[in-house]
Amino acid sequence: MNTQSYYQYHVFVCTNQRNDGRPCCEDQQASQLRDYMKKRVKDLIPKAQANIRINNAGCLNRCSLGPVLVIYPEAVWYNFKNQTDIDEIVESHLLQGKLVERLHIKD
Amino acid sequence: MNTQSYYQYHVFVCTNQRNDGRPCCEDQQASQLRDYMKKRVKDLIPKAQANIRINNAGCLNRCSLGPVLVIYPEAVWYNFKNQTDIDEIVESHLLQGKLVERLHIKD
Repeated sequence: MNTQSYYQYHVFVCTNQRNDGRPCCEDQQASQLRDYMKKRVKDLIPKAQANIRINNAGCLNRCSLGPVLVIYPEAVWYNFKNQTDIDEIVESHLLQGKLVERLHIKD
Repeated sequence: MNTQSYYQYHVFVCTNQRNDGRPCCEDQQASQLRDYMKKRVKDLIPKAQANIRINNAGCLNRCSLGPVLVIYPEAVWYNFKNQTDIDEIVESHLLQGKLVERLHIKD
């Protein structure tokens, strides 16, 4: 199917909270880091430059690699741990279109 | 960037609940229909045939068109109202790779 993406970058951050002792993204402040990412994008990237959406999502089922986010339509997955990682994803990937190798999850 | 998608079809269903009177997907049973979609995919499509994930997501910001879902990496958006619509999206798009014209949101 040949469609143009409504969002240039549509980011989904796994913010799933498990309560059964298994690892989950929300155990590592995924929601807070998603909120931070949203703010950084708003501060750094004018909407006229790129139509970007940063969403929470349910369990992306890559828990052992988490916290994780995925950027569509490119289907690029990242692990992140803190604000420094988020800054790099925003400033490199979303602002300049450059993959962040050190955080990239290779399938 | 040139990567292969981890999920062949990664579906995000907006299940956002607003409490300010504005329209939102969750007012129209989006979560229930997402659960139904997940079950239908499990029943109809063996994992060996297609690696599919059906996720809840926060507000996708297309509220007036809702309930909405988006299928990545294709970036195809659908409006749906009931189980019949979900059945058609599962059986046509996810099972046969055919766009459902009557539900498709053209950007």
